[in-house]
Amino acid sequence: MFFASDNSGPVPQQILDALTQANHGFTPGYGNDDLSREVAGQLRDLFEAPEAAVSLVATGSAANCLALASFVQPWDAIFCTPPAHIEEDECNGPEFYTGGAKLRLVGESDKFDPAELEAAIKGTGGSVHNAQRGAVSITQATEKGHIYSLEELRALCDLAHAHKLPVHLDGARFANACVALDCTPAEMTWKAGVDVAVFGGTKNGLMGVEAVIFFDPGKAWEFELRRKRGGHLFSKHRYLAAQMHGYLREGLWRDLAEKANAKGARLAEGLRGIEAVRLKNDPQVNMIFLEMPRRLHARAFEAGAYYYTHADVTEGDPDEMVGARLVTDWSVADAEIDRYVDILKRA
Amino acid sequence: MFFASDNSGPVPQQILDALTQANHGFTPGYGNDDLSREVAGQLRDLFEAPEAAVSLVATGSAANCLALASFVQPWDAIFCTPPAHIEEDECNGPEFYTGGAKLRLVGESDKFDPAELEAAIKGTGGSVHNAQRGAVSITQATEKGHIYSLEELRALCDLAHAHKLPVHLDGARFANACVALDCTPAEMTWKAGVDVAVFGGTKNGLMGVEAVIFFDPGKAWEFELRRKRGGHLFSKHRYLAAQMHGYLREGLWRDLAEKANAKGARLAEGLRGIEAVRLKNDPQVNMIFLEMPRRLHARAFEAGAYYYTHADVTEGDPDEMVGARLVTDWSVADAEIDRYVDILKRA
Amino acid sequence: MFFASDNSGPVPQQILDALTQANHGFTPGYGNDDLSREVAGQLRDLFEAPEAAVSLVATGSAANCLALASFVQPWDAIFCTPPAHIEEDECNGPEFYTGGAKLRLVGESDKFDPAELEAAIKGTGGSVHNAQRGAVSITQATEKGHIYSLEELRALCDLAHAHKLPVHLDGARFANACVALDCTPAEMTWKAGVDVAVFGGTKNGLMGVEAVIFFDPGKAWEFELRRKRGGHLFSKHRYLAAQMHGYLREGLWRDLAEKANAKGARLAEGLRGIEAVRLKNDPQVNMIFLEMPRRLHARAFEAGAYYYTHADVTEGDPDEMVGARLVTDWSVADAEIDRYVDILKRA
Amino acid sequence: MFFASDNSGPVPQQILDALTQANHGFTPGYGNDDLSREVAGQLRDLFEAPEAAVSLVATGSAANCLALASFVQPWDAIFCTPPAHIEEDECNGPEFYTGGAKLRLVGESDKFDPAELEAAIKGTGGSVHNAQRGAVSITQATEKGHIYSLEELRALCDLAHAHKLPVHLDGARFANACVALDCTPAEMTWKAGVDVAVFGGTKNGLMGVEAVIFFDPGKAWEFELRRKRGGHLFSKHRYLAAQMHGYLREGLWRDLAEKANAKGARLAEGLRGIEAVRLKNDPQVNMIFLEMPRRLHARAFEAGAYYYTHADVTEGDPDEMVGARLVTDWSVADAEIDRYVDILKRA
Repeated sequence: MFFASDNSGPVPQQILDALTQANHGFTPGYGNDDLSREVAGQLRDLFEAPEAAVSLVATGSAANCLALASFVQPWDAIFCTPPAHIEEDECNGPEFYTGGAKLRLVGESDKFDPAELEAAIKGTGGSVHNAQRGAVSITQATEKGHIYSLEELRALCDLAHAHKLPVHLDGARFANACVALDCTPAEMTWKAGVDVAVFGGTKNGLMGVEAVIFFDPGKAWEFELRRKRGGHLFSKHRYLAAQMHGYLREGLWRDLAEKANAKGARLAEGLRGIEAVRLKNDPQVNMIFLEMPRRLHARAFEAGAYYYTHADVTEGDPDEMVGARLVTDWSVADAEIDRYVDILKRA
Repeated sequence: MFFASDNSGPVPQQILDALTQANHGFTPGYGNDDLSREVAGQLRDLFEAPEAAVSLVATGSAANCLALASFVQPWDAIFCTPPAHIEEDECNGPEFYTGGAKLRLVGESDKFDPAELEAAIKGTGGSVHNAQRGAVSITQATEKGHIYSLEELRALCDLAHAHKLPVHLDGARFANACVALDCTPAEMTWKAGVDVAVFGGTKNGLMGVEAVIFFDPGKAWEFELRRKRGGHLFSKHRYLAAQMHGYLREGLWRDLAEKANAKGARLAEGLRGIEAVRLKNDPQVNMIFLEMPRRLHARAFEAGAYYYTHADVTEGDPDEMVGARLVTDWSVADAEIDRYVDILKRA
Repeated sequence: MFFASDNSGPVPQQILDALTQANHGFTPGYGNDDLSREVAGQLRDLFEAPEAAVSLVATGSAANCLALASFVQPWDAIFCTPPAHIEEDECNGPEFYTGGAKLRLVGESDKFDPAELEAAIKGTGGSVHNAQRGAVSITQATEKGHIYSLEELRALCDLAHAHKLPVHLDGARFANACVALDCTPAEMTWKAGVDVAVFGGTKNGLMGVEAVIFFDPGKAWEFELRRKRGGHLFSKHRYLAAQMHGYLREGLWRDLAEKANAKGARLAEGLRGIEAVRLKNDPQVNMIFLEMPRRLHARAFEAGAYYYTHADVTEGDPDEMVGARLVTDWSVADAEIDRYVDILKRA
Repeated sequence: MFFASDNSGPVPQQILDALTQANHGFTPGYGNDDLSREVAGQLRDLFEAPEAAVSLVATGSAANCLALASFVQPWDAIFCTPPAHIEEDECNGPEFYTGGAKLRLVGESDKFDPAELEAAIKGTGGSVHNAQRGAVSITQATEKGHIYSLEELRALCDLAHAHKLPVHLDGARFANACVALDCTPAEMTWKAGVDVAVFGGTKNGLMGVEAVIFFDPGKAWEFELRRKRGGHLFSKHRYLAAQMHGYLREGLWRDLAEKANAKGARLAEGLRGIEAVRLKNDPQVNMIFLEMPRRLHARAFEAGAYYYTHADVTEGDPDEMVGARLVTDWSVADAEIDRYVDILKRA
């Protein structure tokens, strides 16, 4: 009953196999090996973007910070939502990589409202005194488990472009969103107007690999320099490539995301039947936000459940509603989900 | 006959096994798992430093830059030698992580001369106009394949400390130096006066893991913040820990370095018998610097050899002496070494 | 009828005289001259802080950014209000000088609400993933012309200190606030708990001088290094010192602020009598915020008035209420104020 | 007998007069006033560069750092000589403003040797691992009192441009060099190939004003943003403009430099007649480097002389040769120069 995060489960056997297969003989370092080139080509194919600049890094933090820094000047503002990972969970990483850009928080939700975004853009820049307009950063799926429809994405990108701003897509849960929308990676990125996308693998079954895809190949060299300077260029790059190779083979990335989403749906379905549980979102991917009385959390924790709550579950009024986030990883067993539901039902 | 670098060979089976063993069930992320804690304890034991702050990162660039940034202010100078990796091969990464510190190059060799170092320190700082004195960075083994004796290390550390400067040890080839000196990690670090050491694994058989060891545990929290902000904190930290776990088990790290050094010695021994080859160093670890006529390089390259030369080997006077660096990885076959020597002998 | 800003009028004759008096003979540079030392002593006396570290810079931007950077780490958050000058009008200068700290906006007003500040502090930091808690920045008088009472200041400082956060006081209009409160500089700073104060001169009659006063002298040397590195250490420092010398002599700084405030009061008094004008604040210093029909602004502008409005005054519905900010400088003539009021009355 | 620096004397009466004349009425801030515009036009005329982007700042540190940052990326190297002010006397200011660029020291002299410069350029960049090629920074007159001929300047600029590198001219003593060469500002800058020049006023009689002149006007807006963000945009910009206005009127800038240079020549002429004094340079501007026995320095210091020596003049072997730098300001009296010479002659 481990629902704390999708960075906590094991990787599928295919990834270990891919590492093993790559582990023979000598290869040039720093991405100049055949496997790294092959994987870059596969990613270009997957994204239907034969000219795209494709790079691998090992963490989502690096992927997002480096991608943003390639578009944003130190005197710029990045428009994002308040719960955006780049705002909340990077210990000022984006400020570090951009050399001091500002994150301008738009609205109060995890999804942009276009009117609020436009107002924020219009209220930024205009004189030398202010932060200038830098870029729009969209998270898909969002940090609260929602997804933008393709139409919504396109509208936001059009809005950004109307103000000559590039669009960054934080795709830590790219695959989860893509299968939920039943669309292609191209549709969810450049066809909607995205300028740089992070195709995350770490939360979806890899040990630690994310692909950064610039649809304008003119960004390639600057990104390479930034990656190197940030200490994110792997000398033994083949082991990043191998993971991504395994991830792309036979659509494993889709299979894993479908599993994770299905498990999220199963959990939600189970919880819907429990009166004391108030679901906060209609889960579109593998994240569930809910509220329920403290004593139910406490009961589940006693039985071995593990996830984040917004308050201590052992101290305080047992009937007070306490919020929580539950994330289902591709590997969590259905039986574990059912057991959790069962515990709550009985409690 | 791949002698280009020790970042180009495969990893030993033990490392793949360690990854497989770690790949089950759920664990907390970001280093809060049991294996990560166990490995930190093992490193403290290995270094006989029960209080040390120990962290893992995936690249040597990150390890060195983050370690230096923890000691050095933006207005400081880091004292290093001209061929230091932090000066030559990091695309200004140290400047990035320190927020703009300067690297002050001491002497013209890969090893510090204490008198030159002292002169450089004394010539730095003193007024608000100058770069201030920040830290001394020593590479062991050096980028040119030399090693400092324990006495030399101690003398440099004493000198630095006499000027109240901390000492950073770039240990990309820590293991190679340690076995060459037949000393303990403690002797080569804190017992000699080193304040922060990078215990490199990547060049010695890991996919990509380096340990950063602060002997003053007071540096721990700042390092953690810097690591996170730099995008170098792995969510699935267990896979870094697993590699290091395999590396430490049954002294694998020593075995691998002994192999690599022995192969370097075998190559040097073979080359010594060839009149046209001029060895530039008496190899102490796994790096050989030599000069020989261009035509010999060309002949070897035709036969499939692969390593760095200081000039094109196909164009130019065939009798001109051309310099080269050859590095022997733990995995290179003795037969390959002998074949290379044989080709040169016959040419 | 120039009410655009208090950075637009001339300097009083005393300041020119002070420059002339300082302009003879040779003096050491960079603040090592007698006059600079004397002025530092005078500032320590004025602030009743014999140990304080005192430095002069030429712009408020430099003063605030350097002061904040001395307390705040790159991974920290600075707590300020949304209209804070450091957030709105410095083109990301604080982010630049701190190496990438974040400005966390508290509430929706120009004055901190203690409960909102406490909630913001509590919601920041706590794990390596988040921005850490850095400093609280208070503007006195605020950007909207309000002042904190000494009790309010003390409460905010107590709150910050309870969370171990230092307090920075942006005193671009320090003098205006100080005379409005009829208190001493010490009462408005360290006696209330302020850790570093900017004693602004530029908006109150100097060509360009601000004093930065650290009540903990341990910050002195780092500040000096930051000032130099930022290009803000004047070689001919005596000309900054001379201005401050003239400013402090015979309480000129108080006289100028009293004049500016009195003129603000005169303007407000005049406007209160006009039905179509809606005052938005009860001016405590020299800033007036109001709304009135567009046609009144247009009429005033035609007659030569000059100040900032929130919308174009010539295009649009003539009866629509349009907001504006009017600032009265020490030098603006009473007749000009009265003429402006008169024009509106008649329109 | 104050020969310590040309930042230590008074400013000429014309500058005070210019401040007084500018000190009336209200003007828009931040350089949007008529006088600031007029001065920008005058500078464009002076440099025969009608399209140039012209900005004023108050310190040479700011001028040079901001100018370099407009051309140089954080991963670049700036090529300069070892005694360059940007290397030696800015407390890592260039590293700060460029976001971490590296200063690559060329040769061992204060003047570039073209062959050494070319070798340094060729030895930089080429792969993602290295610092990339950023810009060439030339100081005219140099920190050691030499000047480049126009032919030398042109050769260096041609070399830089052949490698697609822009050229920055640190003109802290621009006027001294310009009158020594008897050339126009245009000849010493863009006609020779300089891309951005600092036209220094502070060391030549202003309180603190330097003009930064980009011959490519496309750099204007980025510079403005960098200036603002660095805290170097003056709200009361007219007082910078007024100083520059006085400096340009009737060729005052040339007159002052001619005086300073002539006084340097007078001092050198006097010293040439003294056997114990060894002149180290043939002064082309207002800087003299010499060696003489310690006791002569000591004698001069007793009599009130003030300048920098390379060793203590009171302690040590009285006959040991001790180096020194003497700088003559426009305002130093001929009688003071003669008195100094006389003291040495008699000693």
